[in-house]
Amino acid sequence: MMRRFVAGRARNLIASLQRSLSSQSPRNFSSAAAAADIDPSIMSSSSTTPVTAETLNPKVLKCQYAVRGEIVTHAQRLQQELQSKPSSHPFNEILYCNIGNPQSLGQQPITFFREVLALCDHPALLNKSETQGLFSADAIQRAQQILDQIPGRATGAYSHSQGIKGLRDAIAAGIAARDGFPADPNDIFLTDGASPGVHMMMQLLIRSEKDGILCPIPQYPLYSASIALHGGALVPYYLDEAAGWGLEISELKKQLLDAKSKGIVVRALVVINPGNPTGQVLAEGNQREIVEFCKKEGLVLLADEVYQENVYVADKKFHSFKKISRSMGYGEADISLVSFQSISKGFYGECGKRGGYMEVTGFSADVREQIYKVASVNLCSNISGQILASLVMNPPKVGDKSFESFSSEKNGILLSLARRAKILEDAFNNLEGVTCNKAEGAMYLFPRIRLPRKAIEAAEAAKTAPDAFYAHHLLDATGIVVVPGTGFGQVPGTWHFRCTILPQEDKIPAVVSRLTAFHQAFMAEFRD
Amino acid sequence: MMRRFVAGRARNLIASLQRSLSSQSPRNFSSAAAAADIDPSIMSSSSTTPVTAETLNPKVLKCQYAVRGEIVTHAQRLQQELQSKPSSHPFNEILYCNIGNPQSLGQQPITFFREVLALCDHPALLNKSETQGLFSADAIQRAQQILDQIPGRATGAYSHSQGIKGLRDAIAAGIAARDGFPADPNDIFLTDGASPGVHMMMQLLIRSEKDGILCPIPQYPLYSASIALHGGALVPYYLDEAAGWGLEISELKKQLLDAKSKGIVVRALVVINPGNPTGQVLAEGNQREIVEFCKKEGLVLLADEVYQENVYVADKKFHSFKKISRSMGYGEADISLVSFQSISKGFYGECGKRGGYMEVTGFSADVREQIYKVASVNLCSNISGQILASLVMNPPKVGDKSFESFSSEKNGILLSLARRAKILEDAFNNLEGVTCNKAEGAMYLFPRIRLPRKAIEAAEAAKTAPDAFYAHHLLDATGIVVVPGTGFGQVPGTWHFRCTILPQEDKIPAVVSRLTAFHQAFMAEFRD
Repeated sequence: MMRRFVAGRARNLIASLQRSLSSQSPRNFSSAAAAADIDPSIMSSSSTTPVTAETLNPKVLKCQYAVRGEIVTHAQRLQQELQSKPSSHPFNEILYCNIGNPQSLGQQPITFFREVLALCDHPALLNKSETQGLFSADAIQRAQQILDQIPGRATGAYSHSQGIKGLRDAIAAGIAARDGFPADPNDIFLTDGASPGVHMMMQLLIRSEKDGILCPIPQYPLYSASIALHGGALVPYYLDEAAGWGLEISELKKQLLDAKSKGIVVRALVVINPGNPTGQVLAEGNQREIVEFCKKEGLVLLADEVYQENVYVADKKFHSFKKISRSMGYGEADISLVSFQSISKGFYGECGKRGGYMEVTGFSADVREQIYKVASVNLCSNISGQILASLVMNPPKVGDKSFESFSSEKNGILLSLARRAKILEDAFNNLEGVTCNKAEGAMYLFPRIRLPRKAIEAAEAAKTAPDAFYAHHLLDATGIVVVPGTGFGQVPGTWHFRCTILPQEDKIPAVVSRLTAFHQAFMAEFRD
Repeated sequence: MMRRFVAGRARNLIASLQRSLSSQSPRNFSSAAAAADIDPSIMSSSSTTPVTAETLNPKVLKCQYAVRGEIVTHAQRLQQELQSKPSSHPFNEILYCNIGNPQSLGQQPITFFREVLALCDHPALLNKSETQGLFSADAIQRAQQILDQIPGRATGAYSHSQGIKGLRDAIAAGIAARDGFPADPNDIFLTDGASPGVHMMMQLLIRSEKDGILCPIPQYPLYSASIALHGGALVPYYLDEAAGWGLEISELKKQLLDAKSKGIVVRALVVINPGNPTGQVLAEGNQREIVEFCKKEGLVLLADEVYQENVYVADKKFHSFKKISRSMGYGEADISLVSFQSISKGFYGECGKRGGYMEVTGFSADVREQIYKVASVNLCSNISGQILASLVMNPPKVGDKSFESFSSEKNGILLSLARRAKILEDAFNNLEGVTCNKAEGAMYLFPRIRLPRKAIEAAEAAKTAPDAFYAHHLLDATGIVVVPGTGFGQVPGTWHFRCTILPQEDKIPAVVSRLTAFHQAFMAEFRD
């Protein structure tokens, strides 16, 4: 039933989401004005400087990124108020559940990774005897190996534009071990997190507003932002909430046809697996259908696989789209596939180190040359991130000195994440009018809230989307920051928010009770 | 005389440069083909994958970046040949003078910086007694300070989209100390090297091919590449080689008028000071004229100041454009100014760490909000780079434990660079038909070569630009990699190349003698 809404209203929805988001956008970012305590509007009108928002690139104006949007700006303001006056709010800290940023919430980094990194940053340590007592033996050995792979052992030099060859070798070996199919180090482009890789592919593929990219709705707003910045058309396909956020090929076909009928040339399909914000892990059969669809329709498959190590359910497993394609007998000449990986996610959560890679397969030599050229304009990604990306894809193995402590840290984090996901999922499902699919993977829950009519009217009166209205009230009452569903897209008339499963385990009971108390009060206030 | 060529032919030149560069562009980048030993043209024709170079974004196709272009690809090939067969070429190593990448040529990192970085990467070290013996006391103290400024001491967390507030405080204090005028930490956007900041400003300012950016010719090709990628118009202004690569306001005015007459809306002026590839350091009076010009014409001043610590002559000093503007009495409301800084340059040369910042002043609140939004889509720059940027702007001071060793490392590098610049400048000026301006700053020399007619004809026959022809012969004969002047732009009919001053000092005599011997042989072969 609901799906009937979707096809026809898809583009309208995107446009209206963008309108509703921009009506919420903050008008209070002016440090100079803040510092001088001047009303920004006065400052801006008295200024004779040439650039105004009206004369900026309209693609930039159109771009939205709710994960760091207005609600986060508001949270930062509350945090400052708490710092200067601890009793100013009914909570003593801001809990940032808006973004997958585990270490900001107290998760400790993996010891082995940081040992290797420190040694590579200051290789002089390797010549000192005290170092043996401070670092594990295999971290010292690994740092030596990595330094040997870097020309001149220079961790402060720009590398090859695709990244240090020896590190790409390690990553390719890691991919091959994961998939059971070979990987070529020359297919790897190391990047500062996954985002620059996504931007690069959008930049290559989008020629005008007539070029479309099929994106899931809900989606991680990097995709909508990047498509907007490059001036393309987001062609939405809806995930089926009632089927655990399932991806249906019939929906892909319908949206592709609809886009074609509007003169849109669809160039690529974005799939996020495990899903963000949905947490869904695709079944193998479903992945095969997706590969077949891309092959048949001549679409580049852009596979966001950054949550490949975050799967929490026994009956699902991560399979890379490359593995699926190869197991179907499709090779280089059959399917164009880009797999994005990041060191920000996984159990290690090294977001601040900005490492990642894309594995680029199935493009002709002259297209690859263009990808290489664009990569080379920015010279290279940061070397610490490159090193971490190689460690993530080639962690300590059985028999290595650090293997036991590494495994214990890894399992500790993953098991705890699985427990947290379940507790929060149950808590959401216990709230009046809230339903929440299971987080099979990734780091998020995306509960649906059925809001009372009065709350929706109050939101309209406040010129904000109902889910943003709810999220604001939640923040003001509890200090918990979640991202309204409007930032990800959702079926019209439904409202959601995204909440990470990342608060430390000892804080989860308090999160649940604050959330529950807030929700009860909210529903009581706005009950029809 | 020569300047008469310039005005009318400027745009033609850019177009023809791009044509000549693209005719040289390599057709041999195909790892999959290389791995399988297949002719790439066969592979690409047998492929049924959907994307071809012809259907890529034409802005990407137009973009050129010679610093990592065809000559470097060729050098990498030679290097591989040397590795597998050391006697295969008349030299035993490739000397990469194509790019300002000091540590790749043996320059050692600054000890204090790397100590702090290692401690921040692995903070557990701070709790161990052995650490006292391995690290300097003030490095330990500085690491503690920095960790205290990071929420949760989490160096693995995404930071604020502009960078960690405490690090921005340190940078702002460093700018204020440098300039004698206040700086606001909220004006600082930390970036992965300077390049992403430049891209961000181009993305904001360029709406269509009718928006122009005034750029020096010769220029660092990041600018031409970024303008091409964002679909704008590069409006060239020529630096006067005869006047030590001087920047004349009359030339700016002429080119601005010329652009306006073609319907181009010029939005910004790029100034690179100290100059790349020219090495020129602007005089204070000249900088005042430039500020006045931007104010009068309503242009954003994009000041590339990444070589601010590399000045080698006693009679010149670096002055930031912000200092110049403020000393003229111009404040926030008078001039829109972005200053780019990088940790890749300076004496420390931490290219691989990808740190930098832009200081954004003189924009209205709603424009700044857009800059913030674009920054937030990529979450944040890498934390190691952020830490290094704060160290660079706040190095050890008199009285600090590391001050003496830091100063000795710093002065050692800077004095050596000055000596190397002079030796190479003299060597170039001693070559037949070569003239070379002094490198007052930065890391490059940009000698002009007057090539014999026969050499130019041979280049034409080989379908390559004469300076690229020369650079190729130089590489094949000596292993020295320089970048042809076509990659930077030059007055039509003149030929140059850019050569870094970065080979280690003990290698300079060999570089000079190889270069000299090659040049004599080349001139003898092609003498008219």
